[in-house]
Amino acid sequence: MSVMTVGFVGLGAMGRGMAANLLAAGHPVRVWNRSPGPVEELVAKGATAAADLGEVYDSEAVVSMLPDDRTVEALLLDGALLAGARAGVHVNMATVSVALAERATALHAEHGIGYVAAPVLGRPGVAAAGELNVLAAGEAAQLERVGPLLAAMGRRTWHFGDRPAQANTAKISANFLLACAIESMAEACSLAEANGVRPTDLIEMLAGTLFPGPVYSGYGSMVAERRYEPAGFRLPLGLKDVGLALSAGEARNVPLPFGSVLRDAFLDALAHGDGEKDWAAVAAVARRRAGLPD
Amino acid sequence: MSVMTVGFVGLGAMGRGMAANLLAAGHPVRVWNRSPGPVEELVAKGATAAADLGEVYDSEAVVSMLPDDRTVEALLLDGALLAGARAGVHVNMATVSVALAERATALHAEHGIGYVAAPVLGRPGVAAAGELNVLAAGEAAQLERVGPLLAAMGRRTWHFGDRPAQANTAKISANFLLACAIESMAEACSLAEANGVRPTDLIEMLAGTLFPGPVYSGYGSMVAERRYEPAGFRLPLGLKDVGLALSAGEARNVPLPFGSVLRDAFLDALAHGDGEKDWAAVAAVARRRAGLPD
Amino acid sequence: MSVMTVGFVGLGAMGRGMAANLLAAGHPVRVWNRSPGPVEELVAKGATAAADLGEVYDSEAVVSMLPDDRTVEALLLDGALLAGARAGVHVNMATVSVALAERATALHAEHGIGYVAAPVLGRPGVAAAGELNVLAAGEAAQLERVGPLLAAMGRRTWHFGDRPAQANTAKISANFLLACAIESMAEACSLAEANGVRPTDLIEMLAGTLFPGPVYSGYGSMVAERRYEPAGFRLPLGLKDVGLALSAGEARNVPLPFGSVLRDAFLDALAHGDGEKDWAAVAAVARRRAGLPD
Amino acid sequence: MSVMTVGFVGLGAMGRGMAANLLAAGHPVRVWNRSPGPVEELVAKGATAAADLGEVYDSEAVVSMLPDDRTVEALLLDGALLAGARAGVHVNMATVSVALAERATALHAEHGIGYVAAPVLGRPGVAAAGELNVLAAGEAAQLERVGPLLAAMGRRTWHFGDRPAQANTAKISANFLLACAIESMAEACSLAEANGVRPTDLIEMLAGTLFPGPVYSGYGSMVAERRYEPAGFRLPLGLKDVGLALSAGEARNVPLPFGSVLRDAFLDALAHGDGEKDWAAVAAVARRRAGLPD
Repeated sequence: MSVMTVGFVGLGAMGRGMAANLLAAGHPVRVWNRSPGPVEELVAKGATAAADLGEVYDSEAVVSMLPDDRTVEALLLDGALLAGARAGVHVNMATVSVALAERATALHAEHGIGYVAAPVLGRPGVAAAGELNVLAAGEAAQLERVGPLLAAMGRRTWHFGDRPAQANTAKISANFLLACAIESMAEACSLAEANGVRPTDLIEMLAGTLFPGPVYSGYGSMVAERRYEPAGFRLPLGLKDVGLALSAGEARNVPLPFGSVLRDAFLDALAHGDGEKDWAAVAAVARRRAGLPD
Repeated sequence: MSVMTVGFVGLGAMGRGMAANLLAAGHPVRVWNRSPGPVEELVAKGATAAADLGEVYDSEAVVSMLPDDRTVEALLLDGALLAGARAGVHVNMATVSVALAERATALHAEHGIGYVAAPVLGRPGVAAAGELNVLAAGEAAQLERVGPLLAAMGRRTWHFGDRPAQANTAKISANFLLACAIESMAEACSLAEANGVRPTDLIEMLAGTLFPGPVYSGYGSMVAERRYEPAGFRLPLGLKDVGLALSAGEARNVPLPFGSVLRDAFLDALAHGDGEKDWAAVAAVARRRAGLPD
Repeated sequence: MSVMTVGFVGLGAMGRGMAANLLAAGHPVRVWNRSPGPVEELVAKGATAAADLGEVYDSEAVVSMLPDDRTVEALLLDGALLAGARAGVHVNMATVSVALAERATALHAEHGIGYVAAPVLGRPGVAAAGELNVLAAGEAAQLERVGPLLAAMGRRTWHFGDRPAQANTAKISANFLLACAIESMAEACSLAEANGVRPTDLIEMLAGTLFPGPVYSGYGSMVAERRYEPAGFRLPLGLKDVGLALSAGEARNVPLPFGSVLRDAFLDALAHGDGEKDWAAVAAVARRRAGLPD
Repeated sequence: MSVMTVGFVGLGAMGRGMAANLLAAGHPVRVWNRSPGPVEELVAKGATAAADLGEVYDSEAVVSMLPDDRTVEALLLDGALLAGARAGVHVNMATVSVALAERATALHAEHGIGYVAAPVLGRPGVAAAGELNVLAAGEAAQLERVGPLLAAMGRRTWHFGDRPAQANTAKISANFLLACAIESMAEACSLAEANGVRPTDLIEMLAGTLFPGPVYSGYGSMVAERRYEPAGFRLPLGLKDVGLALSAGEARNVPLPFGSVLRDAFLDALAHGDGEKDWAAVAAVARRRAGLPD
């Protein structure tokens, strides 16, 4: 296997597992994070601590896993940083907007650096296990170059084309479908309960028939049991992701009526103080609309 | 196994397979259908042809599989028919409204006949194979009595309570979730395509990751490939089922914003002449809204 | 002026003023009502009390003002009643469905009786003052015949065509627009208040600029001041009228997304116990969604 | 009357009439515009041409009328410009976001300059006639100071409070209500036409009864007659304004379901190439949904 030096930015709940898997695969990894705790943890596993982002970019490849557009823009879309970089390619694994992906692609091209978008499906435990699904897009040569890195972090890499924004579109679409599934179950469980059917009976049947797999059984149970804490994925992040879908739609004149309903429901949830709960708490909105008890 | 004589009403695409499975399980079956063709087919398999509904009801149990509320009401909710019946129980396996289930339960009780609601999940092929999922509700004694019949027709019986309407609520909720999944994929595929991602790539990834099972892969492929014919389940039936959910909600003051979007989308599809297509053709509405080619 | 004998059915809050105006215009009026109180009131003004509906229909013209489809159907769409009638024309002034208008037109034609639909705009005070706006449709000869009656009850008659259902469509559309205006102001006032603008300031400005007339100032004040009682028009009647619009749309494949939002909002209001309040109380739903205090 | 020197930025269709009215009221006006044509027109009426924005801000008051957030931000929210200004107050009359108003208020305060938000209701002809309705908010002392300027441009000034953003909220709410009225009529006219009622008959009745005033009669006629050109207010500007409402709602967790429907409808219109038409062309979307001819 071809080993390459990797600079890694963003050691949050997802990033630390991903960086650890790059190390485990034999790549020398130089890490950087805004808070120092996770850096020490990775150094203990064999990583080097970068003094600043300049040092991170003094690697063959940079991999970043940051929370949102704003952070990516503030930290990494920086002409001076890119101008001084030795890195030949940047793999951005965050869930960011299509618009950011397009700006980032152009900016990296100006500095002769490859840009690959590779957002992932999977929670922190899945990241730690190296079992992520990676949705990737970018120039074929760049994708080939970073293939071993993606393979170290995931169980499978799915390709969406040669423009990085395509991978972001796919990821945004996937999260949109998750949100739709949750809202669908929220409405169905309210309908069921108001008509005297136990939501848990409904979800058990659905998960055992039409809808196998973790989404309907997992979120379905949370909805049916009104168990919104601890949050696996916080509600404001859900609103952010619905917003990414609506924005990607707006840029191409694609109306998304389900997306509009989701946006309104998430705002309603936030207006009722559910910002620290899992996005499954959008089910509390469906219950409230129907006058069902909390 | 306890054998009982069964009157069977409604030998449509679903009913003929179900009746055949009752025969195969050793129950004497007397069949009735508005058109004679399917009757001959069942008689060839060992059934007896009933001259009229009165003869059907001269059995220990009646099983019916009719297309909608109107037909059930016109044929079976008939005081004279019930007054003269020998049958001790009627198993209504159609997808009908909660309101009809409540009326039917009361009417059968007046005549001392048990009433079980047992709508099913599965297409005609599944019915023929005896692999339906049966959603059942009714008094425990009645459910026990008809258990062998349900077992002969399905792979599993799911119980929802002692009021028949509970099973109809569960079935209506399941179909509501199917419609939501189709619309979700329709919107996501339009979003993806408008942003340069191939819908088939998106669906393949989703079916291989978050959404295993036949709904997302099956309907997803139809949506992604714009393959709406031949119809497995015609669009007007989809609108009917969404209407059943909206009505069940209205009766208990349960708003269903996704249901409202679905209703509008199905009407839009009908307004554009798609009434003979599969309900997956609601995806053509999402495409049209976004100005994507047919 | 040509005087004719009139049978009048339905002396509710609206009907009693309308019947009084027919009397005042010199027409002999025979009245019938399910409860006797209003009958005495009209008799004191010169009307004759009819012993039954047969007597009402023994007039040259029948005018009815009943609350809804169900009542019209139960009382007046009765073959025996129509077969024995001397009346040459029935003017139905209630807000009923397009479908009922079509059935009633056909049934009256079978019995050689003219049928005119003439629903009205205006509250009871307006009816008492003879200042209603009358929305009329029917065959030209029939409309001409009943023109003096309509003129006695209203300030103006608006014509919509020779099919009675056209007038019902116009009335349903007008009520749909009222409901839309109320919901629009409900959302705008929540938006304003959440952003620190006093809703009363907003409504005062709007009523003084873009939106003159009683709807925006009247309902606007109720919304801005959260003054939903006493009810001028009860919320369940509002839901009924939105339902008439949705049904008229469904019959012709016309999606009404604003209508869908209205339906969901009215159900939400009912789910929270606001069924005795004015339909302006739909504003409480907009406030609740935004987490604003009751 | 107290005369003051005024710098005026933005001589578009609205601004040129407004600046002319300031001149007519006796205020010396120094004008600036990105394209020179309108400058000459105002100079011919007595204005002075400013060489740059610095010269504009060398006046006692600055009035600006720019198309959108982006332009205001690019031209006027400039620390150097404000640091060098002699002007004591800036009156921003554009329809901009609540967020921009808040940023602008803070930035002007840093430089010791008053900031008044005073967006207007009225088309260019109304602006030229000095008959605008001015929606104003800001510190009382500043409002008093610029009162004569606002009076010179409008028929009336409506006050919304001491925070400039309040006036922007009021203006955004007013435009939201306009958009809702248009969509309401679009849906009602489709419903009417599909049921055999002439939309022009419906609108004439509505404008003559429930909904007096220019909005329902003016936009109603455009909708009923499908007359979307020439554009009085282009559809993309309508989408922008709906977006301002949605954003102002999102910032305070206010769901706006009608706003969501509007957004989807405007996108649908743009997806069908109606970007140069009046925003009344959203009615073409309602017609298309219902399968009515263009």
